[in-house]
Amino acid sequence: MTRYMDVHHDAQGVTADQLRQMHDAAVAMAQEEGVQFEHTWADPESGTVYCLSEAPSSQAVTRIHERIGGGAPDEIHPVPIAV
Amino acid sequence: MTRYMDVHHDAQGVTADQLRQMHDAAVAMAQEEGVQFEHTWADPESGTVYCLSEAPSSQAVTRIHERIGGGAPDEIHPVPIAV
Repeated sequence: MTRYMDVHHDAQGVTADQLRQMHDAAVAMAQEEGVQFEHTWADPESGTVYCLSEAPSSQAVTRIHERIGGGAPDEIHPVPIAV
Repeated sequence: MTRYMDVHHDAQGVTADQLRQMHDAAVAMAQEEGVQFEHTWADPESGTVYCLSEAPSSQAVTRIHERIGGGAPDEIHPVPIAV
């Protein structure tokens, strides 16, 4: 498992409720996809969303985003260092 | 206080030790600058660093980065939503 940070740039107006619903949907399929979302932070004004997850691959992170209706991330990087 | 996520794109080869030293330096001046770093995640291969902080302004986040030798972030956004 690798920790990933992914970023979305076009989520203007996103709400906490929408993110919570997507988070709950992701938790429900976590075992199936092998992806565990840890946290999501969002700036609805600029439309920026940051998601921190643990996953077997970046493809798995992209796939679960698409399944929960969040759209594929614009950027995704493994983040092996955490302080 | 507002929570901010900032991103650096040119930190290729950054190490956990370097980030820990900068984090410790930031903690030492946290009261003076009013900025509290919560977490930092890094991908040394692409040179991407994400920092999550609580601060009175984005300018304060930029200033403490410059004081600890981390360079000004390339992007910074308030993240009022957290899930």
